Amino acid sequence: MPETISAIGEFGLIKKVRAIIDSEGVRPEGLTLGAGDDAASFVPRPGYEVLVTCDAVLEGRHYLPGVITGCDLGRRAMTANISDIGAMGGAPRYALVSLGLRGETAVSEVEALYRGFLAGLNPLRACIIGGNVAESDFTFIDITLIGEIRQGMAVRRSGARPGDAVLLTGSTGRAAGGLQLLLRRSGDTGLSDNPLVRAYIAPSHRALLGQAAAATGYVTAMIDTSDGLAGDLAHICEESGAGADLFLEAIPLDEGLLEAARAFGLDPYGLVLGMSDDYELIMTCDPRRAQELQGIAAQQGVPLTVIGTITDSREINLVAPGGVKRRLDYAGWDHFRR
Amino acid sequence: MPETISAIGEFGLIKKVRAIIDSEGVRPEGLTLGAGDDAASFVPRPGYEVLVTCDAVLEGRHYLPGVITGCDLGRRAMTANISDIGAMGGAPRYALVSLGLRGETAVSEVEALYRGFLAGLNPLRACIIGGNVAESDFTFIDITLIGEIRQGMAVRRSGARPGDAVLLTGSTGRAAGGLQLLLRRSGDTGLSDNPLVRAYIAPSHRALLGQAAAATGYVTAMIDTSDGLAGDLAHICEESGAGADLFLEAIPLDEGLLEAARAFGLDPYGLVLGMSDDYELIMTCDPRRAQELQGIAAQQGVPLTVIGTITDSREINLVAPGGVKRRLDYAGWDHFRR
Repeated sequence: MPETISAIGEFGLIKKVRAIIDSEGVRPEGLTLGAGDDAASFVPRPGYEVLVTCDAVLEGRHYLPGVITGCDLGRRAMTANISDIGAMGGAPRYALVSLGLRGETAVSEVEALYRGFLAGLNPLRACIIGGNVAESDFTFIDITLIGEIRQGMAVRRSGARPGDAVLLTGSTGRAAGGLQLLLRRSGDTGLSDNPLVRAYIAPSHRALLGQAAAATGYVTAMIDTSDGLAGDLAHICEESGAGADLFLEAIPLDEGLLEAARAFGLDPYGLVLGMSDDYELIMTCDPRRAQELQGIAAQQGVPLTVIGTITDSREINLVAPGGVKRRLDYAGWDHFRR
Repeated sequence: MPETISAIGEFGLIKKVRAIIDSEGVRPEGLTLGAGDDAASFVPRPGYEVLVTCDAVLEGRHYLPGVITGCDLGRRAMTANISDIGAMGGAPRYALVSLGLRGETAVSEVEALYRGFLAGLNPLRACIIGGNVAESDFTFIDITLIGEIRQGMAVRRSGARPGDAVLLTGSTGRAAGGLQLLLRRSGDTGLSDNPLVRAYIAPSHRALLGQAAAATGYVTAMIDTSDGLAGDLAHICEESGAGADLFLEAIPLDEGLLEAARAFGLDPYGLVLGMSDDYELIMTCDPRRAQELQGIAAQQGVPLTVIGTITDSREINLVAPGGVKRRLDYAGWDHFRR
């Protein structure tokens, strides 16, 4: 029987967690006080703004228990937050992790979660500086991530202008395809190595490209695709008071996703445009700057594709090769709605 | 039938919540971007450190649904975090609120929650700059609060030295007494005005005194009493590598609490020393500085009492008037432990 957190108690668990953070995490220079007091403290970098985001992951709502390991779950939850800081052009620095945990959860499972958090943070030289644990009827992970960016350089959703090019990193829909695979072939043990399933369970983020792109000053608006390509582009359009035309032929379509969609009789563009947790970035910029941004992306090995243009129409259209426009219904993932 | 959040959806709810924050909240000078983008941003004050804390409140674990109104619940959850920033000597500035909510929750109830958050933040000129909502099987409120303090002036738990005086604001145990009243007389509608019940449901915090005390540079250690007087003093002792003697006669004992304890056949000192969510502050300082701190507290109308002294014994003793010492078992509230 594995040791449970009920057996070692809150303070016992915190001790174990802190040992992992201390021995396996990094300690940035500006950190003056880490976890363990009423609050943590850090000295902000002069000339920089502080960025803050938070995102929660709930068992049964945002992930399938039993399908994802503790380490993958922790990394995925952290990736969602890293992606948000990256979508502003910022560098993640300090995380706070608030957990709701069942008493019967194995201590090793919680340790694996923290190793997952650190797997997301360590490559960025970011660390965990605080948090909370509470007993709960189901597991939830709520992360607040603090980042920094040179003053005035943060890229908002609201700066897109008609005529701007719309660019997309990588390709979308792969996570949605992975989820479909998991739901439809739940018994298949070979699935864990499937690239689409990996895209769903262990997504990457584009925070480093977001930082480099924002630093050029050319990016007029940026967002990450956690509500799906169409839904998140809609956020940019709404905040910018604009619309967009997406060129169907230009939208990257992953080969594996195309195959899976065919096998399941699904519209591949439904997966590409709809709700999918891919954590890619959508950027807009003056079309004359697109190539320069693509060059920066290429240096990082990240595909960056011009997929459309910002318009003054207040709607998002999908433009087929012949020029036929179809207006998109772009409702993203909406909790609560039935 | 009140409108539910299922009916208006996540984005509808966020719109309503943002309207309350914008119209009823304050907007501090340093805030460069509030809620509504991938992350919020602020310009930190030069010469100041950033403080960060987080604390979660779960339905059925940390509060009794039906007993507390949405507004009181929101204020109480925020108070717990304000108290943590105050216990470092800091000033609260920016909050992020992450909610887990049932789909059938009334929109008005969520609006009341936010009015409660603002009731805690507005007097401090602090505001909500972000958050998250997720559908959940039970309600939880997870708050991250960011504060600031002049560089190097934060007061930790670890600075208490043998010989230091131990001081306590107000009195403890009142919240625990209020909880006992609610549990034992659950049908009594007159309870809502009872001072002990108010202490449990609508606790105050001592953040302003914490700030003023820390600014003197005399406070060697500080903590708020959310794990109970003995439990939190134990945290100071543990982090400082010290012990403490508490003078039984000096420990403030609320009249109403004494009465309630008598009525229920409870040891009043069990309530005063044990787990109780009072959000008072424990401070330690050179005994020659105690009077000065008491003077500052008096200016704020806050009682500040010398209740003991730090020792080099590594244990906490209760010293009776005759000088008889009794070692305290000071385990605070430990989630998970059975």
